[in-house]
Amino acid sequence: MATSSQDDDPNRNTNTEMESVERIFESKKVPPWQKQLTLRAFVVSFILGILFTFIVMKLNLTTGIIPSLNVSAGLLGFFFVKTWTKFLDKSGLLKQPFTRQENTVIQTCVVASSGIAFSGGFGSYLFGMSEVIAKQSNEANFEQNIKNPSLAWMIGFLFVVSFLGLFSVVPLRKIMIIDFKLIYPSGTATAHLINSFHTPQGAKLAKKQVRTLGKFFSMSFLWGFFQWFFTGGNDCGFASFPTLGLKAYENKFFFDFSATYVGVGMICPYLINISLLVGAILSWGIMWPLINEKKGDWFSADLKSSSLHGLQGYRVFIGIAMILGDGLYNFIKVLSYTLTGLYRQFNDKKTKGEPVTGNSSPDLPSLSYDDERRTRLFLKDQIPNWIAIVGYLAIAIVSIITLPHIFHPLKWYYIAAIYVFAPVLAFCNAYGCGLTDWSLASTYGKLAIFVIGAWAGGSNGGVLAGLAACGVMMNIVSTASDLTQDFKTGYMTLASPRSMFVSQVIGTAMGCIISPCVFWLFYKAFDKFGLQGSEYPAPYALIYRNMAILGVEGFSTLPDKCLMLCYIFFGFAILVNGIRDLVGKKRAQFIPIPMAMAIPFYIGGYFAIDMCVGSLILFVWSKVNKAKAAAFGPAVASGLICGDGIWTLPSSILALARVNPPICMKFLSRSMNVKVDKLISP
Amino acid sequence: MATSSQDDDPNRNTNTEMESVERIFESKKVPPWQKQLTLRAFVVSFILGILFTFIVMKLNLTTGIIPSLNVSAGLLGFFFVKTWTKFLDKSGLLKQPFTRQENTVIQTCVVASSGIAFSGGFGSYLFGMSEVIAKQSNEANFEQNIKNPSLAWMIGFLFVVSFLGLFSVVPLRKIMIIDFKLIYPSGTATAHLINSFHTPQGAKLAKKQVRTLGKFFSMSFLWGFFQWFFTGGNDCGFASFPTLGLKAYENKFFFDFSATYVGVGMICPYLINISLLVGAILSWGIMWPLINEKKGDWFSADLKSSSLHGLQGYRVFIGIAMILGDGLYNFIKVLSYTLTGLYRQFNDKKTKGEPVTGNSSPDLPSLSYDDERRTRLFLKDQIPNWIAIVGYLAIAIVSIITLPHIFHPLKWYYIAAIYVFAPVLAFCNAYGCGLTDWSLASTYGKLAIFVIGAWAGGSNGGVLAGLAACGVMMNIVSTASDLTQDFKTGYMTLASPRSMFVSQVIGTAMGCIISPCVFWLFYKAFDKFGLQGSEYPAPYALIYRNMAILGVEGFSTLPDKCLMLCYIFFGFAILVNGIRDLVGKKRAQFIPIPMAMAIPFYIGGYFAIDMCVGSLILFVWSKVNKAKAAAFGPAVASGLICGDGIWTLPSSILALARVNPPICMKFLSRSMNVKVDKLISP
Repeated sequence: MATSSQDDDPNRNTNTEMESVERIFESKKVPPWQKQLTLRAFVVSFILGILFTFIVMKLNLTTGIIPSLNVSAGLLGFFFVKTWTKFLDKSGLLKQPFTRQENTVIQTCVVASSGIAFSGGFGSYLFGMSEVIAKQSNEANFEQNIKNPSLAWMIGFLFVVSFLGLFSVVPLRKIMIIDFKLIYPSGTATAHLINSFHTPQGAKLAKKQVRTLGKFFSMSFLWGFFQWFFTGGNDCGFASFPTLGLKAYENKFFFDFSATYVGVGMICPYLINISLLVGAILSWGIMWPLINEKKGDWFSADLKSSSLHGLQGYRVFIGIAMILGDGLYNFIKVLSYTLTGLYRQFNDKKTKGEPVTGNSSPDLPSLSYDDERRTRLFLKDQIPNWIAIVGYLAIAIVSIITLPHIFHPLKWYYIAAIYVFAPVLAFCNAYGCGLTDWSLASTYGKLAIFVIGAWAGGSNGGVLAGLAACGVMMNIVSTASDLTQDFKTGYMTLASPRSMFVSQVIGTAMGCIISPCVFWLFYKAFDKFGLQGSEYPAPYALIYRNMAILGVEGFSTLPDKCLMLCYIFFGFAILVNGIRDLVGKKRAQFIPIPMAMAIPFYIGGYFAIDMCVGSLILFVWSKVNKAKAAAFGPAVASGLICGDGIWTLPSSILALARVNPPICMKFLSRSMNVKVDKLISP
Repeated sequence: MATSSQDDDPNRNTNTEMESVERIFESKKVPPWQKQLTLRAFVVSFILGILFTFIVMKLNLTTGIIPSLNVSAGLLGFFFVKTWTKFLDKSGLLKQPFTRQENTVIQTCVVASSGIAFSGGFGSYLFGMSEVIAKQSNEANFEQNIKNPSLAWMIGFLFVVSFLGLFSVVPLRKIMIIDFKLIYPSGTATAHLINSFHTPQGAKLAKKQVRTLGKFFSMSFLWGFFQWFFTGGNDCGFASFPTLGLKAYENKFFFDFSATYVGVGMICPYLINISLLVGAILSWGIMWPLINEKKGDWFSADLKSSSLHGLQGYRVFIGIAMILGDGLYNFIKVLSYTLTGLYRQFNDKKTKGEPVTGNSSPDLPSLSYDDERRTRLFLKDQIPNWIAIVGYLAIAIVSIITLPHIFHPLKWYYIAAIYVFAPVLAFCNAYGCGLTDWSLASTYGKLAIFVIGAWAGGSNGGVLAGLAACGVMMNIVSTASDLTQDFKTGYMTLASPRSMFVSQVIGTAMGCIISPCVFWLFYKAFDKFGLQGSEYPAPYALIYRNMAILGVEGFSTLPDKCLMLCYIFFGFAILVNGIRDLVGKKRAQFIPIPMAMAIPFYIGGYFAIDMCVGSLILFVWSKVNKAKAAAFGPAVASGLICGDGIWTLPSSILALARVNPPICMKFLSRSMNVKVDKLISP
């Protein structure tokens, strides 16, 4: 899982291969695939799956920016099993040592299960169907366009759509990994991490990293706990701290003391954080105040502040325009990469006279020792193609039958149509991700929103149909690229493709149950859930719903002048992306990414400031001690994210139990304070 | 200046003499005394004098606990002159290199000038005369017992009383330093510090320490600046943060984010901080809540909360009883040390057949190289006794004539009586301080309050007379012990006694002007200055005034049952001190000091918590890296204290200019918050 928002974001990991990794591990026997799938691995995966689901859910529902949690998952998985096996070893009960293959199984399972928290759309399409969000968009609020969350249908829905992606790419794994030798930067990086853990020095470093992670985990958790006491009311507590003054606070510029986003900022590349800040300054610093001055001219002055026909509409739709512009550009770009890449692969094979998808000889003389050994083991455990085809067809039929019962406007033929094209799109996404590390899942989802939404039409619940179609599409393409990443990781750690597949299936099944339950906890626990300005505004839910409305009803819903501005920013996003590609990599790192710029357009700049603080910390740390910052920066960031994320568990339980914080830390202007003082002691 | 509160506190510095310091400096020529007194030294002293006066004044007016600022003064003095001479050296203009003698001159001058901020009584007797304090004590409020601060009479008063102490000990310096070889722990420690700065490794370490100090200085200053923005009203900002909950806040238990007191806690011995905390728990945690339950029984229920006939009276008078008990015990203890010490000295001399005060031969064979060289130089520059006697008499006559004009109830014969006994008491204090590092200045001051107050009587403005007499007495004995400490420092750094004396005179003169001006700035700048619960409550001003009232009117002013409790705590203080002395040094470090326990009785435990946080930081740091904590702990603490202290300068200027902070960070209970929210958005 790369750094991604509810909309996709690039994350280019450097890919520095070591001399010969497999020579170090030469003496270690690779266990058969059944032995790689241990019970302890799945117990640990389940625990970590819950942990990371909480974290991803929190991120989903606050800003929608989700960093790569691979390093933390890797570290924690290693830590848990290592502690457990060490304990068993000491008591003489250890039957099977901890191998890197088992570690890869855990990693795969955790990422699959917490991935559902993202692709399940709890912060986007799924929650966008609810009444809470529908009321905020004020359009197409007919009953048939609303579907409130409920535990039962959410779990059912996820089970029928989440496994298709897996079956669709299984037959293609050899082409991607062995024949095309795609990079899969995130998968490769994860493999390096796991390999390094299992060398002696690596294990030592990992131990230190885990200690650092643990320290910052506790600090972050305690900080969340401390903050809680001062949030006894709306706009109370550190999250409402007008750090830069009241005027800046009104325009959503403040540091909100969130350990999560400081940590996220430490993981995300500098460019993303700067882009967010530039976007925040452009929108909340310049544009919105200017547009607000046209009140009564560009939009009616007596609208509620949440009305989409007012300033809020400008915020949402200009953001959507920019996201779509960026998405379109990158869709075309990745598609063309995919096509030219494929074209070249076919040409190369042809000139070499080899079959394209056939079983090419694994031990070519040009292969390195590592590649040779990895390829041999990768091809040893086959997954028969008929399983993939039968599995795909069976699940497709089940979901064609069941989904229309869940979402009435989603007719069976819409689903069938999606399933015809899905394997191709899944392949495209997996291939593009292998080249660029950029999963375009949500872009394909948006495509489905517009296509199916327009097909269904406004009067037939097109909004709901579009959102549901988005879910079906997103789940397929997202799990497809995830699985291929995992195959790459498995390839590099000598884990069997079979154990990867089984682990992914089990992890996905876990995720289909964990994610809805965690979402349900949030949904039931917090007041004002999903409302703008609340603790959990779920910003993308509204954005996705409005995209669906746009797809169904066209531009009629937009306020005056907004369409023009949308065109401008749509073009702007394409232009900036074009420039970024033209000027070369070196200069591109000084040009902000439009996708990242668009995120604060709707929710404001406060989390961008948090993230820039994280960047700043990492930057200063790197200047002071580069090696230490590189080795421990990710551990510190993971600790900050995980501690604050897991605090949401007790915090939501407290909220469910109606235990309210005792104190409100309030920020008043001096004049208002005089009035309040009179109220308190007249 | 040792760690001291408005009441005295012990500070036992370890005294580890190095092998032979003077051999290291053998090659360096000692400049003649006139050359030790450079203009640049006094310019730097003046700047640092202002800095430290601000810090001491702030401490005076908030809690009355003043830590030893010798290390910061030493470091900063070294830093300023070193930078200046380095700059001159590079430009080829340096006429005179920076010597340790010059450094000692700076140190002496700074300590003398900032010492006036303490002995001037701005937080105790002097401000206790004012109407603000008189109104809070509700007794003996006749006009003749009130004298409001004014720049003119304060400067005049300080000039006529502050120099007497200097002249009274000048003739005795040889007895104390050479003949009795008194330790003077603080003076010795300062000398070690200065000597170490001027060795090559010492200079290197000092540079690093200065950098650390600078870093924490800026952090602390910026933190003070940041806090300021959120204090736009009463009970606003971080200083009112109910860190431990609202209930604890009501009983003054909270961490108030004060960089100053965290720094002070890092400098003060662990035992003092623990004693403060124990005192806070005993009083605000247990006793006051219990006494408050007797409302209507032990004291009238319809009194104002600030009335001394209610709970407030119990707080103040029990605190006074404990301070007096501790003071009395230590007075007797130090006096007996002094007398037995003197007795032994005389006996020793007699058996050796040497004259006691005569010029004994400086180069006895038993003297070490260091002592021999130091003694020779110390005796080289004499200060004729007639100067001391003429100076003392001249100033005494001037002040006998002028003081009754400033304080009408203070008759000339009271002053004359004080001046007859003063030299003896000054000698006692200087001698006791040399043995124990414990200046009993404020104990002598209290003695004067009771004696002169009772002599003058209630109807003749005895309260004002007592407070003024306290001032006269405190200034004499305090400057006497300071000067002797400085002579010891000078002895160990080969600085001439003449230059020490001149430096002390100039420093005192500076202090007589700087301190009243700084106090005046505070007095004019801050609303509610001197009121309980405000930013600057000046707790000891009320305590001193009440002691004067007690001396004049007897126990009639005390609320019911209070007298009994006072007796108990008076005895308790003596008992605990006795036990501390009986069980030996090792076990005594686990028994709290009554004097320190008494301080939070009146003002509450918040600063004790700050100081314990400081202790905790230092403790953890010592566990992690003992050497580093020892080398840089004082620098960090000094940085924290100085940065926050100097922030009071711009903050008071802002207050004077009526620039108010824009935001109020307020802490409301949940139920109150509901009401406030209704007020804000009905």
